[in-house]
Amino acid sequence: MDSPPPKTVTPAPFMLGACWYPEQWPEESWRRDAGRMRDTGISVVRVGEFAWSRLQPARGELRLHWLQRVLDILHDCGLRAVIGTPTAAPPRWLLDDLPDMCLVDGEGRPAAFGSRRHYCHAHPGYRKACAQIVTHLAKKFGRHPAVIAWQTDNEYGHHGSARSFSAAAAAGFRAFLRDKYRTMESFNRRYGGAFWSLEYNDFSQINPPAFTPAGHHPLLLLDFYRYSSHSIREFNRVQTEIIRRHSPGRAVLHNFAGFLSGFDHFALGEDLDVAAWDSYPGGFLARHGPAGEQLRYLRTGHPDYAAFHHDLFRGCGRGRMWVMEQQPGPVNWAPFNAIPAAGAVRMWTWEAHAHGAEVVSYFRWRQTPTGPEQMHAGLHTPDDKPAPGHAEVAQTAAELQNLPPPAPPFNRAAVALLVDYESIWMADIQPHGDRAAFTAVLDFYRALRRHGVDVDIISPRDDFTGRKLIVAPLWWAPAAEAVGRLQKSACPVLFGPRCGSRTEDFAIPGDLPPGVLRPLLKLSVRRVESLPPHAPLAVTFTAGAKKQSAAAICWREIVRAEGAQAIAKYSDGEGEGALFASENFTYLACRPNDALLDAVLRRLLKQAGICSAPPPPDVRCRRRGGVRWFFNYGSRPARIKVEGEVMIPASAKIRNGNCTLPPAGVLAVLDKAEGA
Amino acid sequence: MDSPPPKTVTPAPFMLGACWYPEQWPEESWRRDAGRMRDTGISVVRVGEFAWSRLQPARGELRLHWLQRVLDILHDCGLRAVIGTPTAAPPRWLLDDLPDMCLVDGEGRPAAFGSRRHYCHAHPGYRKACAQIVTHLAKKFGRHPAVIAWQTDNEYGHHGSARSFSAAAAAGFRAFLRDKYRTMESFNRRYGGAFWSLEYNDFSQINPPAFTPAGHHPLLLLDFYRYSSHSIREFNRVQTEIIRRHSPGRAVLHNFAGFLSGFDHFALGEDLDVAAWDSYPGGFLARHGPAGEQLRYLRTGHPDYAAFHHDLFRGCGRGRMWVMEQQPGPVNWAPFNAIPAAGAVRMWTWEAHAHGAEVVSYFRWRQTPTGPEQMHAGLHTPDDKPAPGHAEVAQTAAELQNLPPPAPPFNRAAVALLVDYESIWMADIQPHGDRAAFTAVLDFYRALRRHGVDVDIISPRDDFTGRKLIVAPLWWAPAAEAVGRLQKSACPVLFGPRCGSRTEDFAIPGDLPPGVLRPLLKLSVRRVESLPPHAPLAVTFTAGAKKQSAAAICWREIVRAEGAQAIAKYSDGEGEGALFASENFTYLACRPNDALLDAVLRRLLKQAGICSAPPPPDVRCRRRGGVRWFFNYGSRPARIKVEGEVMIPASAKIRNGNCTLPPAGVLAVLDKAEGA
Amino acid sequence: MDSPPPKTVTPAPFMLGACWYPEQWPEESWRRDAGRMRDTGISVVRVGEFAWSRLQPARGELRLHWLQRVLDILHDCGLRAVIGTPTAAPPRWLLDDLPDMCLVDGEGRPAAFGSRRHYCHAHPGYRKACAQIVTHLAKKFGRHPAVIAWQTDNEYGHHGSARSFSAAAAAGFRAFLRDKYRTMESFNRRYGGAFWSLEYNDFSQINPPAFTPAGHHPLLLLDFYRYSSHSIREFNRVQTEIIRRHSPGRAVLHNFAGFLSGFDHFALGEDLDVAAWDSYPGGFLARHGPAGEQLRYLRTGHPDYAAFHHDLFRGCGRGRMWVMEQQPGPVNWAPFNAIPAAGAVRMWTWEAHAHGAEVVSYFRWRQTPTGPEQMHAGLHTPDDKPAPGHAEVAQTAAELQNLPPPAPPFNRAAVALLVDYESIWMADIQPHGDRAAFTAVLDFYRALRRHGVDVDIISPRDDFTGRKLIVAPLWWAPAAEAVGRLQKSACPVLFGPRCGSRTEDFAIPGDLPPGVLRPLLKLSVRRVESLPPHAPLAVTFTAGAKKQSAAAICWREIVRAEGAQAIAKYSDGEGEGALFASENFTYLACRPNDALLDAVLRRLLKQAGICSAPPPPDVRCRRRGGVRWFFNYGSRPARIKVEGEVMIPASAKIRNGNCTLPPAGVLAVLDKAEGA
Repeated sequence: MDSPPPKTVTPAPFMLGACWYPEQWPEESWRRDAGRMRDTGISVVRVGEFAWSRLQPARGELRLHWLQRVLDILHDCGLRAVIGTPTAAPPRWLLDDLPDMCLVDGEGRPAAFGSRRHYCHAHPGYRKACAQIVTHLAKKFGRHPAVIAWQTDNEYGHHGSARSFSAAAAAGFRAFLRDKYRTMESFNRRYGGAFWSLEYNDFSQINPPAFTPAGHHPLLLLDFYRYSSHSIREFNRVQTEIIRRHSPGRAVLHNFAGFLSGFDHFALGEDLDVAAWDSYPGGFLARHGPAGEQLRYLRTGHPDYAAFHHDLFRGCGRGRMWVMEQQPGPVNWAPFNAIPAAGAVRMWTWEAHAHGAEVVSYFRWRQTPTGPEQMHAGLHTPDDKPAPGHAEVAQTAAELQNLPPPAPPFNRAAVALLVDYESIWMADIQPHGDRAAFTAVLDFYRALRRHGVDVDIISPRDDFTGRKLIVAPLWWAPAAEAVGRLQKSACPVLFGPRCGSRTEDFAIPGDLPPGVLRPLLKLSVRRVESLPPHAPLAVTFTAGAKKQSAAAICWREIVRAEGAQAIAKYSDGEGEGALFASENFTYLACRPNDALLDAVLRRLLKQAGICSAPPPPDVRCRRRGGVRWFFNYGSRPARIKVEGEVMIPASAKIRNGNCTLPPAGVLAVLDKAEGA
Repeated sequence: MDSPPPKTVTPAPFMLGACWYPEQWPEESWRRDAGRMRDTGISVVRVGEFAWSRLQPARGELRLHWLQRVLDILHDCGLRAVIGTPTAAPPRWLLDDLPDMCLVDGEGRPAAFGSRRHYCHAHPGYRKACAQIVTHLAKKFGRHPAVIAWQTDNEYGHHGSARSFSAAAAAGFRAFLRDKYRTMESFNRRYGGAFWSLEYNDFSQINPPAFTPAGHHPLLLLDFYRYSSHSIREFNRVQTEIIRRHSPGRAVLHNFAGFLSGFDHFALGEDLDVAAWDSYPGGFLARHGPAGEQLRYLRTGHPDYAAFHHDLFRGCGRGRMWVMEQQPGPVNWAPFNAIPAAGAVRMWTWEAHAHGAEVVSYFRWRQTPTGPEQMHAGLHTPDDKPAPGHAEVAQTAAELQNLPPPAPPFNRAAVALLVDYESIWMADIQPHGDRAAFTAVLDFYRALRRHGVDVDIISPRDDFTGRKLIVAPLWWAPAAEAVGRLQKSACPVLFGPRCGSRTEDFAIPGDLPPGVLRPLLKLSVRRVESLPPHAPLAVTFTAGAKKQSAAAICWREIVRAEGAQAIAKYSDGEGEGALFASENFTYLACRPNDALLDAVLRRLLKQAGICSAPPPPDVRCRRRGGVRWFFNYGSRPARIKVEGEVMIPASAKIRNGNCTLPPAGVLAVLDKAEGA
Repeated sequence: MDSPPPKTVTPAPFMLGACWYPEQWPEESWRRDAGRMRDTGISVVRVGEFAWSRLQPARGELRLHWLQRVLDILHDCGLRAVIGTPTAAPPRWLLDDLPDMCLVDGEGRPAAFGSRRHYCHAHPGYRKACAQIVTHLAKKFGRHPAVIAWQTDNEYGHHGSARSFSAAAAAGFRAFLRDKYRTMESFNRRYGGAFWSLEYNDFSQINPPAFTPAGHHPLLLLDFYRYSSHSIREFNRVQTEIIRRHSPGRAVLHNFAGFLSGFDHFALGEDLDVAAWDSYPGGFLARHGPAGEQLRYLRTGHPDYAAFHHDLFRGCGRGRMWVMEQQPGPVNWAPFNAIPAAGAVRMWTWEAHAHGAEVVSYFRWRQTPTGPEQMHAGLHTPDDKPAPGHAEVAQTAAELQNLPPPAPPFNRAAVALLVDYESIWMADIQPHGDRAAFTAVLDFYRALRRHGVDVDIISPRDDFTGRKLIVAPLWWAPAAEAVGRLQKSACPVLFGPRCGSRTEDFAIPGDLPPGVLRPLLKLSVRRVESLPPHAPLAVTFTAGAKKQSAAAICWREIVRAEGAQAIAKYSDGEGEGALFASENFTYLACRPNDALLDAVLRRLLKQAGICSAPPPPDVRCRRRGGVRWFFNYGSRPARIKVEGEVMIPASAKIRNGNCTLPPAGVLAVLDKAEGA
């Protein structure tokens, strides 16, 4: 406990960082590495993550001194440190002590040692082992002057680890159900257990939902998803409490992974100071992008995927968001791994900044020559030469000096997109056709971004006041309390199909969907259907310009208006409409294609009094404080209308009020008229 | 035993029914439900199925009184009841007593509790538990005046439950083999066990065919399929015997599922009074239809799928067939679940009637708001309002009053299609290319139906006399005795490829295929080959009009004529022909495309003296007694030539001898000239 | 031990053979079969393989006399015998003694009895049982005058059997690692175990690489692949040593399967006298051919697949190669199984001869009517009538009489293709995109064959001297010693992408790729990327004729020249080139499409002074000794320019110096100018 007395660390407004693994390199190189980081313009360095076998090489052996030396070196060089707890990579010897500590998948296969994330979050013994190593670290380094933050674990839920079917998880699940339902009678009643004789006599008879001939009861699945989410949060809280106790004044964060929905990120975020995340635009495109867009954005990444997550995690962090890992070159894990366009790493960094990131930290300082990630690029090649990303980081750091101090990141955008993890789980459990729940949410986000408006992503538990437009693509079982707050907010709200279609017990509402939303929407959904993916059903607006290609795809509902006004109709004349409005509330009774979604949002933005300025195709924009940012994800230069002083790039030339934005180019314009 | 003295129940000629789950609704609503069923025109109500946990909530507890009250109410309302035994949904507590009672799949995974059909049909303890609950029910309700029939279990073989790899099934399999082969020597000899050293020393060494590096011995697979089919029949017989003992005069039936071939439906049918089945034309289309037809018949269901099963199960029931569950709206389980066209539910009902159904019973009276099937439509929505299907049922019930009493359903059609389950299993075991066995059979049925002829579906054990044409698409190992009967029948017979290609021990006949059929067909199959699916091989007829697009696909044989006459040839000149005739017997030496199959059948129908009248495309027809029925599965009106009095619809207008049949329309014409 | 005194058997220069299973047929037929084999022109007969249950029907029972009678009959008829050891089909009773002897797959599933290859090669008890039966056979028949060779087991590695995850294999793997790394410290250091805390405390903690959430450490996978290959070689050596001891002067061979790379064929070949293999051109095409080529070569098989394996196994046999099983008609195991074109069986035989085969033996003499392979054609149909292949064999045997004695098979071709199994494993472990390792090697072979040049396939351990051109498509971690030998050979060498990209410990070389090849190639690979399969990147040559369609696909590298000269460039200008030359060494920095590969090889062949004469499309050629052979795999006749005397066919007519080669036709021209 030889660390200096505590010092309150105030996070700098926008800093660049690096993920550094000194334990993988000779100690002689550490000081040189640190110096070069500083010279590159890097301020924040993450260390320690995954280093458990070096901190505790065997039971009872503790080796913290090397990390002490690392932190001292960082401090000497004026760098700030984030310590990652090593609990995502439990060492081999721990399995000898706790042979049943491993995650078990839905097929009953226990995860073997040999990669990472093989632990079960519900295992009491493993939680205890985590508490011990984190206590050692927090006590030893909690007040070290270099340390400004702690990262718990790494990417919860990644590699399918959100849901464990182990004996420990089964025990936890039963306790969770007992706690929730109290009596078997209550459980059986709320489940509708008379169906298929699915009644239980005792909570001890209930197991996590494993292989059955026909489908599981949807509420059992939902409760198991709820329990798993709850268990991860509990697992995380073990660490946050220890860190808070021993490391006052430091931020506690977790680095979430993208494109995951196995647990409630908002809920876990409540226990953090900052929601960090790991941004891999190129890998995400290759893994999740539609075929057509994979070639279009091959070297710039998808224009909306990272942005969505920036906004999502800024929401989870209640305004505070970091990019803990930023892709610096090709990754190793996607179906194909292209070299980013020149400038893309810089563009991704500024896009993160525009969305409120306090830190963008590159993964990793130097590519490692061994192990599973040896094909993952770093800011340096394995021979310690600068990789192309390095120069872009240095350029970004230089440009950073010319910017005014950024406005507070969470600027309460006029438009809020509501993301409800329980609804994603419900839609995953009951797709009833071809519809990925996560994609449905993303579709609405992408359409808003095409309109050029800034978006905050909020949870159903967030405050709704002060918004000009709320968009809820997927909100199956709104709580009555949340509906009340929504009504009070008095702003226009757009609901997607199936909103209100279930109770919290995954039952169809007694008076049919939209259940609790019926008094607001003034309609009832009489029937629903899912359609083959390639059978779009044309939708026409009853007034206004005709949109030729607007259509419902995959899903549509037959609605009876009970006061609501039909704004658009299905071309086959079924039902009373495809889009309904009742005062502030609009309901979309089908899954929209992009053309229909654009038309609906145009209408809603107008109704909300939000002046949208759609950027050119492939260009995206975002305002932070008084600065308006433009990013070109396309492969051709784009022309941007500029009204104000150009901050970045310094070399920008304005002709006739226009500025040319090259591929992977960034433009920052001081736009005092708008303000924060 | 307070039920009234026995009364013989004579089934009404054609009745509508409903599947009702009173245990899922408050008792206060029961009488009102029953009254509304009666008012809708429903006569038959199925109850009890899946209600085990309500009949026996725990070991030793028996609660039959609620079901007594249900039956009394039905009786009061003049309704007839079918009691479903609840054995497809064993309750959770039973697993505590019999932890090894569950089905085990081919991967060795025991089925978990949580859906249905998780039991192993071979488990002696479970059979005993079934016997107990069925005895309780049969003793209590066997002579109740409302009860006209019993349904055993529910959809045997569904959800992959036809074959269990449990310890109980392994023991049963060994006993089955011991019984069949008597000695190891006989077993090894008939298996040809010298191959790959596949000889056994003792029956105890034999296991159900689980994971092996290379393929299993085909005869072991076939014997295991035979055993599994036999075991399901044994399982069913436990129940039928108890019911017959305690419920005299009531029909015993089972509700078969469609598109399954895991056990021999004919054999199980021998233990039943009526073969019932569950008809889901929309779901079947979405799950089994070729891509091109999925859009074409999106809202009417496939024009031949339900008809095939009507004819199949009428065969299994030796003339008596019910539709126990009729799709009333969108289902919950297909890849997409479209709302049926207006009129489709009525059309499906009349199509079932035309094929001889005594009862068409809709699944279910009311959509349930909870549980795994909450997205499955009923005749009422969960808020107890009539769903669109309800009005169609009422209309059908009204139309029913105007029809003359139907002729006996099993009218011995001129054309018989032979379906042999053992051949389907053999073709599944040895496809040798791209050819789904079930589809091959269906192809022949569909072609017959395109020609407008009525078809009976028969088993190889059926009487062949009195037919004008027998079509055997897939009959790999005909018994000598059956061949003898066939020869005696003296009617034209069409055999598909691979008929006679194996002995009952899955061996190539000593004198090559067609083995036992060689004396009839007067040819031998020298060589066979399978071809890539997209490499059709043109086939030309040696005489008669040229059919441009006739072709062999996927499979063809090189045949030597030994008295048979070649009727058609392969375009590449290989072998002596593609189609052969010898007296009454015709052999198709390849898998035909539709054009070839149509041409072959045209020839055969002519030879058989059967006057076929192909209906317009998308229209199908069927005669029952003196009434000729037309059904329009297309999305456009069709013109039908009418000769006789139109019975349905009452509003039909005939112009110039033609009647217009709207989409999903039904036309019933009294056609006295033809008779029953 | 009543066999005659030893006699040295000299293998005939080119003989035809048959695989015969007398144990599957009545003994009365044996002598007749043997006589007909001889009359057909067959000289070599393989027996015994898979007959364990007949040689040892139960524990302790030995029945060798029937095989004695078989061998005597063969000898009487002047036929030579190859005895196959039966160890690929352990009998059922052995599992009662050794219940854990079975292969366990990567999912932990033990292989069940019921097919073949279900044993684990690492199991000590099973190795002992094999030693016993082989000792019995070798002692009894080792000096039988008919016996000229022994085949060990059958198709090692087939059906996914190369890698076993059993307890025995785990123990063997640990011993292998202990042996290799000696200390835990050395192991952890070479693995870079600090990554993800993948360090071990003891070798006993290491398991074969089973299911983990994220990917395994590549070196653990590679070491496990190495161990598995080593274990198969050990397993085989148990048998070869026993045979050599008891059967002097006889050749020991193994029949390798095609398209497998699970173990090092060169290494196992070192323990054999002859590398035999099983050639199924039709089955390989259907299973492995690109869709476009499947129809093109439907009835002739792929023009390069069999040839590649001929050359590969001739390399493994250090010049001695047999085709132990030659496809004689349709097989039973491919996705489709077409009848070969008339003449194809003869063409395949002569192609094998042209590649140096000493024996081509047809599988099987007679199609078996029972068991898993009943659909596999033989030279006779199950009714013992000649199948079409039979006449082609007889024709080939007759033509054989007219040929001069062939030159020694291994004629040291000017061009050598280097195949390195460790590199195939490494590329399988780390594809980093869409690139099948085996296919990459095949692509280079195919391109060489399109140029009409003869190819030897060599291992990295072979002598490099005397070659005119060496092509190394995939050589990730060349040993320094091999690189030294390469430099000394002083001939042009072409390296494919990723050559030299790893150390033997699967690490990126400290000075970046091409690591040990950097001094030769005078360049360094700065960055790499993988691309979507359908995004080809054009490549242009800096000099010479422009090749319009040359392109990189799936993979490319950004290279810095350090003395090497760029010969071709990427069209997007990235890096300093796509193809580099430095003295004798050429480096291709991308995966080439066919057009690029053809252009590169044209350049290299010219540089090497090799005069190539590309045959017409679909025709392939090969020289053996003084004879030049042409084979037409196309479906149309081809015109061949003839310079010399035509040996085969006798009927060949030369017009204007050209000869017409029909589909599936063979042409052998005596070309004295060239010589052996």
